[in-house]
Amino acid sequence: MNPDIRRERENASFNTQILTNILDGGAEKTRRRREIEALVINDPDFQHDDLNFMSRSERYDAAVKKSAQMILKLRDYGISDPEEIYFYKRFIHRGSSEPLDLHLGMFLPTLLNQASPTQLDTFFTPAWNLEIIGTYAQTEMGHGTHIRRLETTATFDPSTQEFVINSPTVSSIKWWPGGLGKTSNHAIVLAQLYTLGKCHGLHAFIVPIRCMKTHQPLPGVTVGDIGPKFGFDEVDNGYLKLDNIRIPRENMLMKYAKVEPDGTYLKPPSDKLTYGTMVFIRSMIVGESAKALSKSCTISIRYSAVRHQSELRPGEPEPQILDYQAQQYKLFPLLATAYAFTFVGQYMSNMYHRITGDINQGDFSELPELHALAAGLKAFTTWNANTGIEVCRMACGGHGYSRSSSLPDIYVTFTATCTYEGENTVMMLQTARYLVKSYRQAREGQQLSGIVSYLNEPQRVQPHPVSSRPTVVNINDLSSLVEAYKLRAAKLVEMAAKSLQGELQHRKSQEDAWNNSSIELVRASDAHCHYVVVKLFAAKLSEVSDTAVHSVLNTLALLYALHGVALNSGDFLQAGLLNVPQLGQVTQRIKALLAEIRPNAVALVDAFDYRDEMLNSVLGRYDGNVYESMFEWAKRSPLNRTEVHDSYYKYLKPLQSKL
Amino acid sequence: MNPDIRRERENASFNTQILTNILDGGAEKTRRRREIEALVINDPDFQHDDLNFMSRSERYDAAVKKSAQMILKLRDYGISDPEEIYFYKRFIHRGSSEPLDLHLGMFLPTLLNQASPTQLDTFFTPAWNLEIIGTYAQTEMGHGTHIRRLETTATFDPSTQEFVINSPTVSSIKWWPGGLGKTSNHAIVLAQLYTLGKCHGLHAFIVPIRCMKTHQPLPGVTVGDIGPKFGFDEVDNGYLKLDNIRIPRENMLMKYAKVEPDGTYLKPPSDKLTYGTMVFIRSMIVGESAKALSKSCTISIRYSAVRHQSELRPGEPEPQILDYQAQQYKLFPLLATAYAFTFVGQYMSNMYHRITGDINQGDFSELPELHALAAGLKAFTTWNANTGIEVCRMACGGHGYSRSSSLPDIYVTFTATCTYEGENTVMMLQTARYLVKSYRQAREGQQLSGIVSYLNEPQRVQPHPVSSRPTVVNINDLSSLVEAYKLRAAKLVEMAAKSLQGELQHRKSQEDAWNNSSIELVRASDAHCHYVVVKLFAAKLSEVSDTAVHSVLNTLALLYALHGVALNSGDFLQAGLLNVPQLGQVTQRIKALLAEIRPNAVALVDAFDYRDEMLNSVLGRYDGNVYESMFEWAKRSPLNRTEVHDSYYKYLKPLQSKL
Repeated sequence: MNPDIRRERENASFNTQILTNILDGGAEKTRRRREIEALVINDPDFQHDDLNFMSRSERYDAAVKKSAQMILKLRDYGISDPEEIYFYKRFIHRGSSEPLDLHLGMFLPTLLNQASPTQLDTFFTPAWNLEIIGTYAQTEMGHGTHIRRLETTATFDPSTQEFVINSPTVSSIKWWPGGLGKTSNHAIVLAQLYTLGKCHGLHAFIVPIRCMKTHQPLPGVTVGDIGPKFGFDEVDNGYLKLDNIRIPRENMLMKYAKVEPDGTYLKPPSDKLTYGTMVFIRSMIVGESAKALSKSCTISIRYSAVRHQSELRPGEPEPQILDYQAQQYKLFPLLATAYAFTFVGQYMSNMYHRITGDINQGDFSELPELHALAAGLKAFTTWNANTGIEVCRMACGGHGYSRSSSLPDIYVTFTATCTYEGENTVMMLQTARYLVKSYRQAREGQQLSGIVSYLNEPQRVQPHPVSSRPTVVNINDLSSLVEAYKLRAAKLVEMAAKSLQGELQHRKSQEDAWNNSSIELVRASDAHCHYVVVKLFAAKLSEVSDTAVHSVLNTLALLYALHGVALNSGDFLQAGLLNVPQLGQVTQRIKALLAEIRPNAVALVDAFDYRDEMLNSVLGRYDGNVYESMFEWAKRSPLNRTEVHDSYYKYLKPLQSKL
Repeated sequence: MNPDIRRERENASFNTQILTNILDGGAEKTRRRREIEALVINDPDFQHDDLNFMSRSERYDAAVKKSAQMILKLRDYGISDPEEIYFYKRFIHRGSSEPLDLHLGMFLPTLLNQASPTQLDTFFTPAWNLEIIGTYAQTEMGHGTHIRRLETTATFDPSTQEFVINSPTVSSIKWWPGGLGKTSNHAIVLAQLYTLGKCHGLHAFIVPIRCMKTHQPLPGVTVGDIGPKFGFDEVDNGYLKLDNIRIPRENMLMKYAKVEPDGTYLKPPSDKLTYGTMVFIRSMIVGESAKALSKSCTISIRYSAVRHQSELRPGEPEPQILDYQAQQYKLFPLLATAYAFTFVGQYMSNMYHRITGDINQGDFSELPELHALAAGLKAFTTWNANTGIEVCRMACGGHGYSRSSSLPDIYVTFTATCTYEGENTVMMLQTARYLVKSYRQAREGQQLSGIVSYLNEPQRVQPHPVSSRPTVVNINDLSSLVEAYKLRAAKLVEMAAKSLQGELQHRKSQEDAWNNSSIELVRASDAHCHYVVVKLFAAKLSEVSDTAVHSVLNTLALLYALHGVALNSGDFLQAGLLNVPQLGQVTQRIKALLAEIRPNAVALVDAFDYRDEMLNSVLGRYDGNVYESMFEWAKRSPLNRTEVHDSYYKYLKPLQSKL
């Protein structure tokens, strides 16, 4: 092991194992996760070349191979708990998406949730046994966010008891579904249902798209891969054009809405029933933000502990770059963020499971709050993690730019979360809608409960000049900082609500007023989410009994909160929550916290407990032997297969004779 | 042409051609640039497949082919003006780097600047005729930023009149030079010179690395490609390990420093002589920032004009997404930034040429200012453009994530500029060193000149409470905003200087004080650069005589300035340059400016005058026919070469029989 990184570990003030257990949600969960990881590591079927050296077609091929093996082995091992399946799958694909993701994550669950019992009989077993491989085809070339305007049509023909599915325009071609291009032979297609001359809006239809014997596209079906993307090389995101495809009436998913043989349409009892999956996925993405950022921090902080550069003091050896304040200022707030988002992810997961229990008992009361929270936090955490990954990459200098660092791959995979499952700005505006509604309810005298209850207390936020107000923040006290974030959020929600009101008074329509207040609305949501994150981080501390771990987490939480204050100092000054002299103190306090974290930085990323196989980074190796492994990695580059590249004989040598 | 985008052009208030000429630096320059572009477009030798569909080896191959053609054609056409070569080369490679970049941009110029007349006779003609293909090997695996600690050695052996070159450790292996891996047969190697038992620091040596007949690596040379990176697929960035490589004494570049046959070392007359190239390249990068961002804005704004989504008003058709305030707030400040950086790039280029003239006449007086400005602006513009490209990409929703948008490619190519030619944080700290030095000189009574002369006026920036100070900013007046940026910079430079002083009073060493003030120092540099950009944008306006163009540029400049105020409101409040009520007015004013820019947005990106071939983006097409071309592009994806991918037969079909 590299002596620098060994020394870092020796100097840590706390036991990483205890912290790992907290991050996993208990010692037993850590044990089981590691056990499942070992299953993959020791399995020769899951060994593979470095994906960076493969073409996209080879990467897709390797992913299909692993997915096929995975399906068999899950059954062999009897792994059936969803969380354990998730660990296993995640580790096999090293955190990447794969061609069967939508089959497993959308096609099967949609069947379970929306198919009638008869339909389940028909479709589920073949799908479970991968005779039917399915995907979920919603997004079209022309519509992602606003699904109500999807153009694909499904017209019922009572004479043959069939639906006729059509892609009437180029922009109506289904576009983006994972696994659609080459892997799937069926798709659940979202289409506008027409029956008896009337449109009844979007419904889901099971459409066979490839022959189950030959895998060739069926007549009338144009299907293929949409081409290379920023990331997701393993996934055949696809296009699907349907020309007068006829499917039996029984292929419309009819657990709730129905079309009778005579064409009569029966509408579903509630439109909230398909709501849950979306909220679940968004909640999960919060946890993905934490994972992507904690991986990036692991790589960049370990590398910063073994990389030596420049000089702090003349004549002395070059210091570890982790000793530079500028480097600490880049990385430690992100480390704190990775912890914060992990705890927020745990909270969202727990909240989701609790509320799902309530919903199953008919209690929908907390669903709007969960929905608003999931939307906003999905956007807040993905945007912040997204920026943070790139800061980590650039903090590794040139070597971060090499694919061997794994940071480019983490980025291109993760950045899609800012767009999919609800574009982030749209998500922020959804949360803002809930906040403004809550604010108005509070103004009308309703007593709010839950996380927006702070909007009950408007009297505490008044537009006073900055310096004349008593200061409310004690910058050394986490609960005082939570309070400050709360008051900032209250202030910004109020400002957004007032902007709306102002626009309406200028005789603008509700819709124009909303559009013309977007800047304030997004800011309000952002401040609300920021408050929630600081609050949940502080709350988590009360659950931690180990003194040493509590101490280091408290330092991280303070850093997270104060760094956010420094970045948004205008808001805190504007709201009178901070005065100018305090702002200078914030910087000093941040510097002191950086210095406190410094000796624990490597142990804090070790606690995330990523195996080298999962990081796949020459810079982030546990043993710190960076340069040797970078050289070994480079030698395997495809361009090094021959000493002299063909282009020399084809172009350079002939050119020399012409000049 | 798509009717939406035609209408946008019809509604513009100004003549794009006039603005294009301003951006090019004159009508004649526009004409000649277009002429050179047409040479490439109409040349069948430069037609090529979409690079996104090729493997890295194929992309390298295609780039070598084009570069070889280019060398021939430059001579045929007699293009020899550096700027025209740049246009031609840039267009051939569509803005990407290529394998001969370092030969043309570093190897040949270094020979010209640092070779003795005899050496020029020996090396220049073969290098000009590409018998010698060279690269510039400075960076090692273990050292990028701090080149003084490079480990490669060149030890003079008087008995054979040779230097013996060695890579003594793994970390000393040369790493990253472009064209080193497969293309070059020579390298200028930077190494620590040892002669007569003494080290004389870094010097440059011409080292043959491959046989000029067979292109095979020479004995003792280990050379290869460093493997795939985030971008730069066309370039064979390489590694080079040298084991007792002997080169004649005459292969040390000896225009300035010399080693005599008896081993006597003669040092160079000045160490500023190699300074110029570095400053030149950093100045050029400012212009690259403008180009990358203006391309990204062109793509995202044109797409936003033809993409329709959601609803602003119930029952009405879906609006162009450019009509959403949230979209305008993302894109228009970046559009303004692209203009600002273009003008700053012009300024840097002019300043560089002016000062180079002075230097040639022995006047070095302005070099420190140019050096400090180039460092800081390189960092400031690349960081801002880097973030901006990703905002543009995400503003295109899912389709921005497709390689067909070209935005991923622009990003991965551009983002390297934040690291190469001086890591950005290091650059900011270099500028800070100049600012602090200037500040101290001003405190000591020296009258500063040039761009830092504002540090002469300390009395105007005092730490008063925010609300009790008279307000200095008129947010509707550009010159008042320039003044506010100036005072903010002065304030932050002062704070950084005071932080240093405070640290020193705590009995810290100069070096520790510097390190412990990094946060303030970087902020000071950032504020200084921001001031320079706003100031230069405002100054450019005075050169614009066309009223309509002046008006739209003025709107952009105001938006640029006010958006920066909003993002850094804490600084302006803290410095007493703005009060709380004004902050609300800033938001209102920004909204009004967004609305003013809206009808001109498409024309403003048209004025950048990127041909479709250069953008290579289905979203950014001039004709707006986005969806059709996206479909055509996708069909050509390599995964669509067969209807059924091999992996089906290999894994999925066999699996189905086992389940």
